[in-house]
Amino acid sequence: MAYWTGWLCNCVNRVSTPDMIGEFDLITEFFSSHSAGRQDIVLGIGDDAAVLRPAPGDDLVVSTDTLCQGTHFTEDMPAHALGYRALAVNLSDMAAMGAEPLWCTLALSLPGVDRAWLAGFSSGFFQLARQFDVALVGGDTVCAPLATTVTIHGRAGPDASVLRSGAQAGDGIFITGHPGDALAGRKILENDPAIIPAHFPDRPVAANDELLPELIDRFLYPRPRVSEGRSLAGIASAMIDISDGLHADLVKLLSASGTGALLDAGHLPVSESLVQWAGRSEAVHFALSGGDDYELCFTVPPGAEKQLCEQTAAWQCTVTRIGTVTSEAAVRWQQDGRPLPVDDAGYDHFGGGADA
Amino acid sequence: MAYWTGWLCNCVNRVSTPDMIGEFDLITEFFSSHSAGRQDIVLGIGDDAAVLRPAPGDDLVVSTDTLCQGTHFTEDMPAHALGYRALAVNLSDMAAMGAEPLWCTLALSLPGVDRAWLAGFSSGFFQLARQFDVALVGGDTVCAPLATTVTIHGRAGPDASVLRSGAQAGDGIFITGHPGDALAGRKILENDPAIIPAHFPDRPVAANDELLPELIDRFLYPRPRVSEGRSLAGIASAMIDISDGLHADLVKLLSASGTGALLDAGHLPVSESLVQWAGRSEAVHFALSGGDDYELCFTVPPGAEKQLCEQTAAWQCTVTRIGTVTSEAAVRWQQDGRPLPVDDAGYDHFGGGADA
Repeated sequence: MAYWTGWLCNCVNRVSTPDMIGEFDLITEFFSSHSAGRQDIVLGIGDDAAVLRPAPGDDLVVSTDTLCQGTHFTEDMPAHALGYRALAVNLSDMAAMGAEPLWCTLALSLPGVDRAWLAGFSSGFFQLARQFDVALVGGDTVCAPLATTVTIHGRAGPDASVLRSGAQAGDGIFITGHPGDALAGRKILENDPAIIPAHFPDRPVAANDELLPELIDRFLYPRPRVSEGRSLAGIASAMIDISDGLHADLVKLLSASGTGALLDAGHLPVSESLVQWAGRSEAVHFALSGGDDYELCFTVPPGAEKQLCEQTAAWQCTVTRIGTVTSEAAVRWQQDGRPLPVDDAGYDHFGGGADA
Repeated sequence: MAYWTGWLCNCVNRVSTPDMIGEFDLITEFFSSHSAGRQDIVLGIGDDAAVLRPAPGDDLVVSTDTLCQGTHFTEDMPAHALGYRALAVNLSDMAAMGAEPLWCTLALSLPGVDRAWLAGFSSGFFQLARQFDVALVGGDTVCAPLATTVTIHGRAGPDASVLRSGAQAGDGIFITGHPGDALAGRKILENDPAIIPAHFPDRPVAANDELLPELIDRFLYPRPRVSEGRSLAGIASAMIDISDGLHADLVKLLSASGTGALLDAGHLPVSESLVQWAGRSEAVHFALSGGDDYELCFTVPPGAEKQLCEQTAAWQCTVTRIGTVTSEAAVRWQQDGRPLPVDDAGYDHFGGGADA
């Protein structure tokens, strides 16, 4: 989940005006450039979260993410899944910083008061809040088109926050879980929203095709890698979560670090379900460009790989080495020993999706 | 500015559904009741802000407010004034807690990219941010109808936060500034938006009627009483900021304290401009029920009134004693020695306005 680094891309794509400028220039011109000043800011705009220092040794990690109907989800999104997601995408930001999530606020924009919908939404939200011991401490609600904005607060990891900017040539590049599944699930739902029962209980009911529930579940219920992220503080040299697509988000990490990478698409941990549903070639495509995965991509110095192995033994998700950081700025993928061209479009490559 | 205490009132009023319930019940049923748990929460949902305790002696004060076009402002609102207001309403929450504002995040929902609008918005936002040394540390932006959500973080006052719940019988009731002016300014603009020049420079240009600019300015540019609020930590027994109307917000404070009040409308500090524009009787009405003032209403124990006098000598705004806290739960206004009936509707009494 980007934190003011990928915003407005959908907006810019959709709106044609003589004043149209890129989102990065826009942030710089109107916001970042005015935001200097305080000495208690360790890290401001531009990473997965801000790092603030109210007192020495007590870093506070803060992130805000908005989800809007039409941009980040369709009207078919079950209330339970939306409540879950509103918090999940913010937890994923904490994970990407190696931080412990503590508290959040919720700004909820509703077109009307629907008790059944609110029951589903709050049930999904608090299911995840309880799981990660995150407290909702306040918020605001207004009558407007459906949207959620969650601001989450966390405590920095024991060895400080893991930023995007710390990767060095020679570091290994790793990814958790199975990228691409979430996009497949999204596409299945877009083609047939009726797969989700009208009165959504808790999890999507199994469709006839036994591949579908797993892929749909990966889209509707991304697992924020919070404990994994926290255990990487002090081990990973750089980290980002994958919301806009593995390649696009990895490019952000490498760019922030002033490095490049050599990667092998043959090592991508595509799931069996994705391969069966999409075919192997398309599965790699999904893994490289699909958004909404909320897996962690991180780099580890060679001297820390043993420590990484010890940590990952306790993880509930897979972790896969997919390449190596290089000093040359280019990001080069190969497959079967041949160069594999990959563009930078990320999730928009598929013509829709999230910018947050 | 209420913090999940007055939300959705516009929504409930506008939307008719079989499931319609009051906003307080809705918050309790779907959100507050799930939000217990952590030991590091001093104060959760229900005051002007949450109070969190990452470490002893280091309380963090957090508040979130959303402003939506159509609910909180009209399309005539100049971008500069909206940028100013987006931060001002949150600063007012910090003021009401006696806290020092430090950092904020901004979630900005835009229908499109308009550089002139963004220049005005950011100019208004950062004018106030610089004035109060508040840093913008991150945010998110999406393409959707115009709305802003600011989450602000502050440090609790030297004598801890001032809550709504501390008023005791015998305490004096005070208010800063001139309540009612903002609503008058809003009504003037609603009747004649052309008073604001199309290319709004910085402040509204004077209209022919010399009363108007002051009242309009009070609506467009409310002054958050941050330094006044901070100086009241350790003096005021309870405090709230006036966003929904003096009477309505005072009722919230007294209700949280389990007390009532006897108040004299003849002591209300209505401005000369308001009296000239509306007449004295209507001016009192505006002062009691008008929203958007963002003045502070607070209570002070008899033993601390001397200390209050010493503090207010340095203030840039007036402070007026308007009544006394009573043990009887009723909130009774009188004028010229006779009871003055006042209803609890607050800002909605005038058929529109803000719920946040």
